[in-house]
Amino acid sequence: MQQTDGRFSDLYALIPAGGVGSRLWPLSRSARPKFLYDFLGSGRTMIQATFDRLAAVAGDDHVTVMTGVAHAAAVRAQLPELDERNLFAEPVGRDSTAAIALATAILAKRHGRDVVVGSFAADHVIRDDDAFRECVAQAVAAARAGYVTTIGIAATRPSTAFGYIRQGAPLADRAPAAPDARTVRAFVEKPDAETAQGYLMTGEYRWNAGMFVMRAGVLLDTLARLKPRIYETVTALADVWDDDGDRRAEMMERLWPAVEKIAFDYAVAEPLAAEGGVAMVPGGFGWDDIGDFNSVAALIPSADARNNKIIGDRGRVVCLDSAGNVVAPAGGEGRTIALLGADDLVVVDTPDALLVAPRARSQEVKRMAAALADQGLDAIL
Amino acid sequence: MQQTDGRFSDLYALIPAGGVGSRLWPLSRSARPKFLYDFLGSGRTMIQATFDRLAAVAGDDHVTVMTGVAHAAAVRAQLPELDERNLFAEPVGRDSTAAIALATAILAKRHGRDVVVGSFAADHVIRDDDAFRECVAQAVAAARAGYVTTIGIAATRPSTAFGYIRQGAPLADRAPAAPDARTVRAFVEKPDAETAQGYLMTGEYRWNAGMFVMRAGVLLDTLARLKPRIYETVTALADVWDDDGDRRAEMMERLWPAVEKIAFDYAVAEPLAAEGGVAMVPGGFGWDDIGDFNSVAALIPSADARNNKIIGDRGRVVCLDSAGNVVAPAGGEGRTIALLGADDLVVVDTPDALLVAPRARSQEVKRMAAALADQGLDAIL
Repeated sequence: MQQTDGRFSDLYALIPAGGVGSRLWPLSRSARPKFLYDFLGSGRTMIQATFDRLAAVAGDDHVTVMTGVAHAAAVRAQLPELDERNLFAEPVGRDSTAAIALATAILAKRHGRDVVVGSFAADHVIRDDDAFRECVAQAVAAARAGYVTTIGIAATRPSTAFGYIRQGAPLADRAPAAPDARTVRAFVEKPDAETAQGYLMTGEYRWNAGMFVMRAGVLLDTLARLKPRIYETVTALADVWDDDGDRRAEMMERLWPAVEKIAFDYAVAEPLAAEGGVAMVPGGFGWDDIGDFNSVAALIPSADARNNKIIGDRGRVVCLDSAGNVVAPAGGEGRTIALLGADDLVVVDTPDALLVAPRARSQEVKRMAAALADQGLDAIL
Repeated sequence: MQQTDGRFSDLYALIPAGGVGSRLWPLSRSARPKFLYDFLGSGRTMIQATFDRLAAVAGDDHVTVMTGVAHAAAVRAQLPELDERNLFAEPVGRDSTAAIALATAILAKRHGRDVVVGSFAADHVIRDDDAFRECVAQAVAAARAGYVTTIGIAATRPSTAFGYIRQGAPLADRAPAAPDARTVRAFVEKPDAETAQGYLMTGEYRWNAGMFVMRAGVLLDTLARLKPRIYETVTALADVWDDDGDRRAEMMERLWPAVEKIAFDYAVAEPLAAEGGVAMVPGGFGWDDIGDFNSVAALIPSADARNNKIIGDRGRVVCLDSAGNVVAPAGGEGRTIALLGADDLVVVDTPDALLVAPRARSQEVKRMAAALADQGLDAIL
């Protein structure tokens, strides 16, 4: 099933592009979420880089995106290569299970239940594209063998920001084309620091990056069993999706807001792992999650000898006796940001909102977004 | 000579409004210096508050201002009560000796050498206007008795930000209407912390706020002796000032840039004190210098229970887990400043420049201005 150009003709990639990314406020906004930004200054936004990576594995016409109606136009503008039919829009976000299930039902209807669907988030950074492709090749092989297959990221530190995957036995001859694949014993939630340290010591735990690769029919059958209401809704929607635009729109408006909002990990991955139905392929391709300003800073080069990181135009930031800051000068043309004797701060300047916080509080920026909402400042969220 | 309304008919007040205030950058700019701002939210700018205070003592028509040509229009707009003839403009700043000397020469020419000229900076905050008036009354009396008279501010802490005045013997019957006046033994420059502590212990030292009150003739004679070149220039200018506008303009353009640039303390007060010609009246009227953001913060009430100080509209600043900050939200309409977990910072937001620094570095903001100039960013200075 592998094509001569190295792509997998039975693989369809899905990019769920839904999260607002409120830990990256005020750069990331509900009206313009983080996946539309080029945080790393690479010249490609998060969703563009994700599209490029997946198109290289599955082919342009095999990449699909699920996003909010409010962001469909922006996604279309950023991804001219994306087939219009492969852009799925939801009127309201219903979390990852519903998004993946709907896309899978549509793809199964179009291409058959044997196609493999691979879901990869729009806000991840992957450094080694070749290693990623090899890893996906094994995940596709394990998926073909009937497993819902995840990719386990090598844990390089005792992070408390990620969930973990506990590995089981090798699949061995159950999936010969996936020599590194193992079963998954369990998915575990974000641990505290001590628990995370313990995970790292055992060598049995990897980070859960929320990547899932599976045959469409396997996922749909699992949903029919574990989440029948979601299954019924998405298959009903898939039945009309391509043939009757009016009816699709009417059904989405009517049915979608009532769909259960539940993460894929909880609805599918955890219960199925307990049954032995989930496999894991180890990923060693250099992975990072663009979760907060600290994680962005870790991925961009220093602008000077004092480890200041600039997200954007360095020429607009002047640092005097200042070290280790993360500065985003996005406030508009002609603004200069001057730091004097400031260390380890996050300073994010946008046209209508400025954030100042210590880097150590990066994870808590989400709380600021909540506080602003409490004060009725939704316009800047 | 005291009028029935409590004013002194022979007193002319001078407000030298020259300094840029680069420690208050980016609020204070070369094009719009600090005296044009209402840092305290009192409803009156620094120069307006100074005018009000001096007009109450000397009368509206006895208040004069010396400022840069570039700021004359702004001063005129802020002080509609200021007589047009009492606004003196210099094409370039030549420090305080030249400014006070020129104004004094003009006033002597207009009103005679016996009038008393009192020079009071435009960036001071005085809390007790009645005490100030009583103090000025004694200073005027000492000035009439022939002394160049300064006002010595009660030192309430061992500040290293001010110069000090060392007091001498009481004037006693040499100026009966100035019962608290003493001679000045010496003016001393800004001390280090240990020296300042020593000054405070002796009880003989007061802060030098740069206030000087003297008979016009006494100052002009002193200048003729100690700074003859300055004396010649200002008397030549005063001779044509009111009678020949074209010639005044031509002479100012030609002569003023060549005038020696020297502070009044060095040129007049120190050498004259050594000769016994300077008196000091103690001032206990609650005085503060608006020198940097820390000193502004000390003068405004906290916006919340965590001692955050807002220079401007409180509604535009949101502080979460943040204490002791000084925030100026002057970036324009519709901008919100959000502080998360930030303590003891100065955050000054203006339309084209943002400053972030620890409060403890407030005095060094001047260095930032110099660094920006080095980088060719004069447009925002």
